[in-house]
Amino acid sequence: MAALRAELARRGLSGLVVPRADRHQDEYLPACEERLAWLTGFTGSAGAAIVLSDRAVLFVDGRYTIQARQQADASLFLIEHLIENPPDRWIETNLASGDQLAYDPWLHTVEGAERIRKACAAAGATLIATERNLIDEIWTDRPSPPLGAVTLHALRFAGEPAEHKRERIASELAILRADALVISDPHAVAWTFNIRGADVAHTPLPLSFAIVPRQDRPSIYIDGRKLSNEVRSHLETLAEVRPEGAFEKALTALGRQKLRVRIDQATAADALASLIRSASGTLLPGPDPTALMKSVKNEVEIAGARAAHIRDGAALVRFLAWFDDRAAAGGLSEIEAVEALESFRREGGLLKDISFPTIAGAGPDGAIVHYRVTLGTNRPISAGELFLIDSGGQYEDGTTDVTRTIAVGEPSAEMRERFTLVLKGHIAIARSVFPDGTTGAQLDSFARRSLWEAGLDFDHGTGHGVGSYLSVHEGPARISKLGATALKRGMILSNEPGYYKTGAYGIRIENLVLVVEARGVAGAEKPLNAFDTLTLAPIDRRLVVTEMLSGEETGWLDHYHARVLATLSPVLDTATTAWLTAATRPLGLR
Amino acid sequence: MAALRAELARRGLSGLVVPRADRHQDEYLPACEERLAWLTGFTGSAGAAIVLSDRAVLFVDGRYTIQARQQADASLFLIEHLIENPPDRWIETNLASGDQLAYDPWLHTVEGAERIRKACAAAGATLIATERNLIDEIWTDRPSPPLGAVTLHALRFAGEPAEHKRERIASELAILRADALVISDPHAVAWTFNIRGADVAHTPLPLSFAIVPRQDRPSIYIDGRKLSNEVRSHLETLAEVRPEGAFEKALTALGRQKLRVRIDQATAADALASLIRSASGTLLPGPDPTALMKSVKNEVEIAGARAAHIRDGAALVRFLAWFDDRAAAGGLSEIEAVEALESFRREGGLLKDISFPTIAGAGPDGAIVHYRVTLGTNRPISAGELFLIDSGGQYEDGTTDVTRTIAVGEPSAEMRERFTLVLKGHIAIARSVFPDGTTGAQLDSFARRSLWEAGLDFDHGTGHGVGSYLSVHEGPARISKLGATALKRGMILSNEPGYYKTGAYGIRIENLVLVVEARGVAGAEKPLNAFDTLTLAPIDRRLVVTEMLSGEETGWLDHYHARVLATLSPVLDTATTAWLTAATRPLGLR
Repeated sequence: MAALRAELARRGLSGLVVPRADRHQDEYLPACEERLAWLTGFTGSAGAAIVLSDRAVLFVDGRYTIQARQQADASLFLIEHLIENPPDRWIETNLASGDQLAYDPWLHTVEGAERIRKACAAAGATLIATERNLIDEIWTDRPSPPLGAVTLHALRFAGEPAEHKRERIASELAILRADALVISDPHAVAWTFNIRGADVAHTPLPLSFAIVPRQDRPSIYIDGRKLSNEVRSHLETLAEVRPEGAFEKALTALGRQKLRVRIDQATAADALASLIRSASGTLLPGPDPTALMKSVKNEVEIAGARAAHIRDGAALVRFLAWFDDRAAAGGLSEIEAVEALESFRREGGLLKDISFPTIAGAGPDGAIVHYRVTLGTNRPISAGELFLIDSGGQYEDGTTDVTRTIAVGEPSAEMRERFTLVLKGHIAIARSVFPDGTTGAQLDSFARRSLWEAGLDFDHGTGHGVGSYLSVHEGPARISKLGATALKRGMILSNEPGYYKTGAYGIRIENLVLVVEARGVAGAEKPLNAFDTLTLAPIDRRLVVTEMLSGEETGWLDHYHARVLATLSPVLDTATTAWLTAATRPLGLR
Repeated sequence: MAALRAELARRGLSGLVVPRADRHQDEYLPACEERLAWLTGFTGSAGAAIVLSDRAVLFVDGRYTIQARQQADASLFLIEHLIENPPDRWIETNLASGDQLAYDPWLHTVEGAERIRKACAAAGATLIATERNLIDEIWTDRPSPPLGAVTLHALRFAGEPAEHKRERIASELAILRADALVISDPHAVAWTFNIRGADVAHTPLPLSFAIVPRQDRPSIYIDGRKLSNEVRSHLETLAEVRPEGAFEKALTALGRQKLRVRIDQATAADALASLIRSASGTLLPGPDPTALMKSVKNEVEIAGARAAHIRDGAALVRFLAWFDDRAAAGGLSEIEAVEALESFRREGGLLKDISFPTIAGAGPDGAIVHYRVTLGTNRPISAGELFLIDSGGQYEDGTTDVTRTIAVGEPSAEMRERFTLVLKGHIAIARSVFPDGTTGAQLDSFARRSLWEAGLDFDHGTGHGVGSYLSVHEGPARISKLGATALKRGMILSNEPGYYKTGAYGIRIENLVLVVEARGVAGAEKPLNAFDTLTLAPIDRRLVVTEMLSGEETGWLDHYHARVLATLSPVLDTATTAWLTAATRPLGLR
């Protein structure tokens, strides 16, 4: 902090905004981009800081208030609520007239920078873009950027040649009346060129940029050290392969040609937009068209997802059988459970990585939605508790994400009632039928209706999109009141309603679902869609109050369980199959 | 057209935009504001025209394509789709570089004008604001502005003194950090000062503007001829009463004082904003804060609504009983039905007006969502048809809006099935329970779920807000995928799912509902709300397939019918009570 303040003083600046962000607005940051954590100590997945000469403030959301107090030095940082009193509002009321606030234009989107700029203007202050990042100037032991090897994502997994994707992008650009697309999101680069990388945790991203002109050859901007000769020569058949340092010049060149350039409003950095605009290009901010294309899985990706879910389901069932046995014996801890599940997943030899840090919460830990067990919080799983485990795998043929809530010992009547309400919401989504054009926002409340009737709810969306050996949180579709994208056949989303009782227990039931055509509806006047559940693992019968379910709901669960058993028993050992047979028997059977 | 083109040529202008709008963006226009109808012949409720020297185009939405072709001269006007190819897009592709397009800045909102200005710029053309409206310049027999008498809306109907409302507005302005509010919506003027008017059809609006400063005295801008001495002297206790002509100067004065002025983005004219801005005021565009206050009815307004619904329900039941008898005899026409219903409503002596033109569609006419019967379309109501009647009344204590679909003779199995699906949606909304903060968008799909499962849907929102002796379509809350406003206790909305089979029949079941606290939910963790149905009239049992209803749904309908009977029979004659007793008997009874 002292070094930063000295640097600010030396440059005649009043302060600096430090977001938790890299140049791609990635969810998982490489170590060299963890500037906020380095400066403040706070390691949560969302936040920002503002450092002035006499004060500094750390912004975190409701999930992280406690963690921020523990990690950040209270003598240095005030803690503010990221949503209720966001940086722009804070700037408006706390900056003085004439103040000069610095920011790194590569770490803020165009809209994000505009919000801060307006707030500065309202306070009579000025927002100043710095040429180099000021934290990097003083961060002497800053890690090097990651150099994860890029791999080719084979056609038997991708299902569509990169050349064909490139044609589809060109058609989209014609519709958008754009001359070129700047791809600032590495997920989109990965999808467009059928490559994967290893630069960040849990998502096989190759940190990189690309430019796809409507007519000319595309170009990729990536550190050449990540490319083997084989990968490079394959990539060169698709695009010009250039060093990352050439990206800024390429943006200026787009501008100089006075092109109409589509940039992705969600991930394109303010600096990127400035380079094009100041060279006289026209910006067309909007969704990156590859995002929607990527979210609609093709037949090969869908077959891959099904295969991955059988493999992942088998690992999960072996874990669940093991867990029942070990938890009953007592003394099992959250960390042991996480490690066991991961080793079951690894045993097949096809797991590339887990798809996100496993959430494994016993009792009250289960009520913390984004709980991540550490040595400090590790808890024994005791009888009478619920255990919530949310986990997933990255396989080359698909990405998985599944949550189960398990009774340890005898659950209370309240636990069973509330589990059943969550289950009714889960089934309402799983069974829903909806016309073409329906958005996730229009389905979200189906997951809540039964909870609402009991005066309960859950404070997160019902579902998010999932990538194909890519991000486990993939846009643009989601099932949430903010889900404005129409659900299309081939999209994979999670279905994960929950209920959380602070200090007591958490419940979440999550399966991945595929949007498919709903067939056989006599007299239907519109193309209809429905969900096909991909995830294969039993839902804990011991937590279901059968009398609270309608005939259709009971039928859904029994049918789902029969399918889990039929699909997985061929790939399980006899003992696990015996456990699964009991765990999936119809609700009517004791 | 010739006169207009001569006028344009004389002024060196390339063309003119003619919206269907007045200075308040009102839904119902006085005759003097029907410029689009005068110019084109088209009388629909939404549209616009653009007249160039060599071409003219009329924009209408899907509801009005046929009507526009019938009414507008095809040799003069091309017809374009208002939504799919809106005026701004048309301008972008059809105007030539250097063109000067004229518009009246009082007839476009700030955002609307901005859209057209951008489109002109994209075509290399310029948008020119005219001092006077160019249609008015050539419209020699233009009607005079309406001079409907203003009345005081008594406290026994309004429930809150205007002085108190003024204090609440001042508090809101403090929160918004605004120095003054410009009220451009006459509904808001009416609510703020507890007055009503008679300037347009069906809504008791006093066409007027107002300015409410945070600290000083408010002012109303209204034609003084509408004010009796009594009304004027009462209004003068609340505000400065000024002629409409003084409004422009007052806006300039706000600007000169460099005030921060809240203007309503939905209704404030571009001219209004320009006057404030060019005099150095700061505009704070956003929702008029009185819109939300007005939508939450107080205890007196709620009691008024209940009383109005008993009165209106009795009239409707007398009509329904009469209709059953007359329709069975044969030969009854849509117009006769409309007239009969209106006379039943008038008999009580308290009806001020119907709240909108009655929609009465027999057979295929019922499938036209905004059908308005004319001598040309009038149809006999025949056996085997459905008859849809959507109507409402304006009473001083409340505004009503109700739709019933009635079987004439023997309905088909398909009609009964689809009616029952619509009914299931209606009941799903009526029975819904939801936490504080839930928006109408979150409830809308409950009305559609059963229809979706059968491959059916309806192409309008499920419900709109309703005023208290004000507009039958009142914002900001609505039950629709666009309903972003949280539903608050005291709001009155319609619950009106439907189903329309083009060329065959239409079904809609509409009741008004009041948002109330949901009490008695054991273990509720959140403040809960529910709907209390206000409308009192039987739903046609002959169209219900009882086996398709769940126990809860049957229970809701039987309970509703029992309440209708118990509430209305004391105010009905013996014969009508006998009819109602049969019409409301439990579903289980034949």
